[in-house]
Amino acid sequence: MNTPLARLAVLASLIAVTAALPLRADEGMWTLDNPPTAMLQKEYGFTPTAEWLARAQKGCVNFGGASGSFVSASGLVLTNHHVALNQLQKMSTPEKNYVRDGFFARAAAEEIKCPDQEVKVLQSYENVTDKVMAAVDAQAPLATQNAQRRAAMAKLETDESKASGLKCEVVELYHGGEYWVYRYKKYDDVRLVMAPEEQIAFFGGDPDNFSYPRHDLDMAFFRVCENSQPVHPESWFKISPEGPQDGDLVFVVGHPGRTSRLKTVAQLEYERDIERPARIAIQEHRLAAIRAYEKLGPEQERRAKDRDRGLENNLKRERAFLELLREGPLLERKRKEETALRGRVAKDPKNAASAAAWDRIAAAQKELRGRAKEWIYRDLTRGPRLVNMAENIVRYVAEIQKPNEKRFHEFRDSNLASQRLQMFTRAPQFPDLDAVVLAQQLTDARAALGAGDPWVKAALGGSEPGEVAKRILDGTKLGDVAARKALVDGGPATIAASTDPLIVWVRTLDPIYRDLRDWHEERVETVESLEGGRIARAQFALDGKTRYPDATGTLRLSPGKVAGYEQLTTHVPWKTTWAGLYDRSASFDDREPFDLPARVAAARSRIDLMEPLNFVCTSDIIGGSSGSPALSRDLAVVGLVFDGNVQAFEWEFAYDERAGRTVAVDSAAILQGLRGIYGMGGLADELEEGAQAAK
Amino acid sequence: MNTPLARLAVLASLIAVTAALPLRADEGMWTLDNPPTAMLQKEYGFTPTAEWLARAQKGCVNFGGASGSFVSASGLVLTNHHVALNQLQKMSTPEKNYVRDGFFARAAAEEIKCPDQEVKVLQSYENVTDKVMAAVDAQAPLATQNAQRRAAMAKLETDESKASGLKCEVVELYHGGEYWVYRYKKYDDVRLVMAPEEQIAFFGGDPDNFSYPRHDLDMAFFRVCENSQPVHPESWFKISPEGPQDGDLVFVVGHPGRTSRLKTVAQLEYERDIERPARIAIQEHRLAAIRAYEKLGPEQERRAKDRDRGLENNLKRERAFLELLREGPLLERKRKEETALRGRVAKDPKNAASAAAWDRIAAAQKELRGRAKEWIYRDLTRGPRLVNMAENIVRYVAEIQKPNEKRFHEFRDSNLASQRLQMFTRAPQFPDLDAVVLAQQLTDARAALGAGDPWVKAALGGSEPGEVAKRILDGTKLGDVAARKALVDGGPATIAASTDPLIVWVRTLDPIYRDLRDWHEERVETVESLEGGRIARAQFALDGKTRYPDATGTLRLSPGKVAGYEQLTTHVPWKTTWAGLYDRSASFDDREPFDLPARVAAARSRIDLMEPLNFVCTSDIIGGSSGSPALSRDLAVVGLVFDGNVQAFEWEFAYDERAGRTVAVDSAAILQGLRGIYGMGGLADELEEGAQAAK
Repeated sequence: MNTPLARLAVLASLIAVTAALPLRADEGMWTLDNPPTAMLQKEYGFTPTAEWLARAQKGCVNFGGASGSFVSASGLVLTNHHVALNQLQKMSTPEKNYVRDGFFARAAAEEIKCPDQEVKVLQSYENVTDKVMAAVDAQAPLATQNAQRRAAMAKLETDESKASGLKCEVVELYHGGEYWVYRYKKYDDVRLVMAPEEQIAFFGGDPDNFSYPRHDLDMAFFRVCENSQPVHPESWFKISPEGPQDGDLVFVVGHPGRTSRLKTVAQLEYERDIERPARIAIQEHRLAAIRAYEKLGPEQERRAKDRDRGLENNLKRERAFLELLREGPLLERKRKEETALRGRVAKDPKNAASAAAWDRIAAAQKELRGRAKEWIYRDLTRGPRLVNMAENIVRYVAEIQKPNEKRFHEFRDSNLASQRLQMFTRAPQFPDLDAVVLAQQLTDARAALGAGDPWVKAALGGSEPGEVAKRILDGTKLGDVAARKALVDGGPATIAASTDPLIVWVRTLDPIYRDLRDWHEERVETVESLEGGRIARAQFALDGKTRYPDATGTLRLSPGKVAGYEQLTTHVPWKTTWAGLYDRSASFDDREPFDLPARVAAARSRIDLMEPLNFVCTSDIIGGSSGSPALSRDLAVVGLVFDGNVQAFEWEFAYDERAGRTVAVDSAAILQGLRGIYGMGGLADELEEGAQAAK
Repeated sequence: MNTPLARLAVLASLIAVTAALPLRADEGMWTLDNPPTAMLQKEYGFTPTAEWLARAQKGCVNFGGASGSFVSASGLVLTNHHVALNQLQKMSTPEKNYVRDGFFARAAAEEIKCPDQEVKVLQSYENVTDKVMAAVDAQAPLATQNAQRRAAMAKLETDESKASGLKCEVVELYHGGEYWVYRYKKYDDVRLVMAPEEQIAFFGGDPDNFSYPRHDLDMAFFRVCENSQPVHPESWFKISPEGPQDGDLVFVVGHPGRTSRLKTVAQLEYERDIERPARIAIQEHRLAAIRAYEKLGPEQERRAKDRDRGLENNLKRERAFLELLREGPLLERKRKEETALRGRVAKDPKNAASAAAWDRIAAAQKELRGRAKEWIYRDLTRGPRLVNMAENIVRYVAEIQKPNEKRFHEFRDSNLASQRLQMFTRAPQFPDLDAVVLAQQLTDARAALGAGDPWVKAALGGSEPGEVAKRILDGTKLGDVAARKALVDGGPATIAASTDPLIVWVRTLDPIYRDLRDWHEERVETVESLEGGRIARAQFALDGKTRYPDATGTLRLSPGKVAGYEQLTTHVPWKTTWAGLYDRSASFDDREPFDLPARVAAARSRIDLMEPLNFVCTSDIIGGSSGSPALSRDLAVVGLVFDGNVQAFEWEFAYDERAGRTVAVDSAAILQGLRGIYGMGGLADELEEGAQAAK
């Protein structure tokens, strides 16, 4: 929705943004090595112990772009329905539509393995900033610095993995201010246990998405197995049968994906002017193409459902972000903050080398603007899935020929197993849908780059986008796992010899892609990282490590309190109840997207309507936090985070706790839903008792 | 609440205001002689007949600043609880608190007469513009024109009253563009039949006031009697057991009080700069004083309750109005519209005399600014009630000595009976509360006007405001009806000889008041009326009578449709349900002002929670419309109007139907409330059957 009143939501945020600059009490997605202990003690009289932090860390499950947590000693994992959606879609067929109808395993034998779900659990982490920085010669040309940095990170990952037997990743925090090695235990046998109907998980649909008061049972359960047996996690969280109370301190622990809070003004201006508007336009066109496809019939609608929903969700957020950048005091405030920090850095003799960092980042943005269209419009990721798979196959085979430290980071040794899981997924593929998406993307690329652009020329070869897309996707055999396996196992020669039209097509484009990516890594990413790191370390030198890093998908701790807020001229309550769900449905005469699944409608007389359903808290989150547990002081799950409200859109750029809120399913609602609606008493018992009943 | 997010509500409205200028489909509070028939036919395929209009007119009941309607052949009247509140307060005692506990007459004998409730029903109306205009010599000095206009109106009222035996009032419409005589049948035997607990009538209190979704049972029932028997009204409305459906055409018929839509920019600027900020400050101080008084004990709280609530309600609205005037595109748009109209008028030779009207109104505003503080700060109306009564007594006695046409309009013959009802009310008086209010008002006046101001000097006589207030209110005997009667009946000599300290005080101030009022009438009101009339008639000449007049408390017809709207990024439903009420209460842990009366809480298991409670429609209303019926095409009551939403604040200045809404109690909720909560089956039967059961 892009009405004046949607803009208003953004204005709402902007008004909040104009307020005080210091860190707010509940601000921050803190790495677990640096929790805000002083604030916690002062505001809440609570100090997390090392043991508490370790339990929080090891109970959390990384879903790769989303979050979850262990909730029983038998490897049961709680996350959101919308995190599970991708697997549910892949496991569904026209006959068994788990997305629409839900999935309910009432015994261990009924739990089914996901086609390509991988999860990982953080075991330990260590600061390796010195090691990475020591490898980079700050006087060398940028390309050299980039290679040095890449090599150092790759070597650390390999050494660490060998030493620990874990999946080790070197992550960059504070935009290059710190490097850490994160050591994960990885699992790829993940079983689906329970998911309710999408219509109750996503009740209210796109309109209520990012809204509050909210009434969603956005939950799903998986079980993590090893050797076909449930794992017994080192740490897991008990569920609270009562949920939280108003004002309670809660901790959201999860994997927020990406924020832009520490970016420089030049970076934000590039996003405002170029990147975000273009990405929004591309997604709008893609959504329109997908919706046209969905109109072809119910099976087409079923196939495209998760992509439709994902795009809709993303567009709502992206449009808000763009408006925040364009229309309010946000950039003005950022400019002031930046000027103030630059002034302080310039005055400090220790920081002399950092004073020009902002200018160097700005210069990189200028260079980026020159090739931004190529960078954006040649990017097919998140578009046609078989095409992405083919790109990955071609690149995988080429990259693994190189020494580890010379590869694109996604093909470093530490990532190869995950790549293979994705490439060899058993998930059904829909080349017809991919063709629609690819055709749209090629149309957009030609319009933006011109028919004379080398990539466009190579991609179209004089044909129309629709023809090309149809030809390569009709003709490809990559829908078949064996065909993909044969290509990867065959190696470079097999790829080179392949006549699969999709492989041929990707092969043609690959050199152009590599040129552009090298340019971007050297001229943009490296500058942003090296200079961003200088800025961060200059700030550490001035103020100590009083800030948290921008979100990067790594584990974070976000303390906050359960609290309502004010909107327009009235109060918004801290929680909603089941009565509110039935009210909202009836208030819209049960019309879609406010219709109730039959099971939920029928349960009205059975369940306690005055019990809580959802609640809000001030914990600082962003996309990727979905599925995080909201934990009490004693590490019980009191809620399941699934969204932010409209006023939290601004959290992409700046946190404010006046009206921005994290939205969670109340733990009491999880239990009542399982028992009262779905007859899943066994699962509820496992949650309350902490382990599967003996069989 | 005056938070940034409250400002946002106003911004919300402003965004809407910037849109198209032509009349919107559902815009307008139309006089019944000029309904928007073309729009109704085009948009809704409906044309009201003369008989339909007459039935609508005669079924409506004027509550003097509020609205109601006949809902049975036995004189039963439906209005809002908050319209009844004033009488409920006056009928309550420390022992019988009808405000808190409700009032339920289960038999005719239990219905009790209100102390001073007067209602009237419009019987007929007639355009007398020519007669009034003919009496005014446009070349004469302003004072003469004013006297001529006043005399013509007074004479028309007297003549008409004599001819019809009805209460006849000459009303000014379109800011002087038209004059009409309205002939009313008046009733002063009004019995209280039923009122629920204030807490369910005003559930959500000040926060939810002007909010939606809403959950209020803001209803009350009276019975109009004559000769101690229920009247049998010429027209009355049946109640619809089902209420309306989404999208239904509805007609709100009632008495909207005052809007500023046709005011000139100069008038609005005066309001923005002077009048509204000062009135807000005065009311804020008064509210603070009353709240301090309420803290003295439960009985004090009970006594002041209706004043507290009235002020709170008014301040919320007034602050929004001021922000609309100050901070948005509203005045900019008004300026453009005015410039366009002036241009058209100036080009039309027939309208030459009107071209300078705007300048003359602006000049009057300038003059008004010079004495605005006196005009505002010497005004004690709506403040201490005994003081207002004393002022009325002193003026009444003086005015009725004069010929009818020379009196202040409120003391014309046609208004004397109402004046006597108010002066001789049996309602309990609270001099201690009045003293608190008066002291505050004198403090404000001294601060604004200075201790040397003649009125301040006369009012204080060298003492402090608190001393003066205490002295005259402790000492007065006017709390006693007999004392007031004796003064009025005694006439000028008795007033002159009175040693009652309150009468002495008012007597002292009266000449100063009269000077100021004469000045205001001649230099401001007369100009606004004469020149405003020229503007209106110039517009009629250009466009025909395509506009409705600003609200003036006279009967209006507001067609609209039942419809939800969008807020922030989601949908707001067209109705709420009883489940929503219980949800909202539970969502705030039943904390005040979201607590439920015991009867309502206990009824949850008995009533149908999915039935509607409140709904919204696009009908155009303003303060004074409270208690209006929302009627279906066939004149059944489908709802009871009790509020507008936050987005309708802007309707003071301009109508917009995108998010502004009228809020009503669903007629189905009225019946379910009576039967399911209060055991008032007899009353519900009377509503459904249209008459009291035979006894």
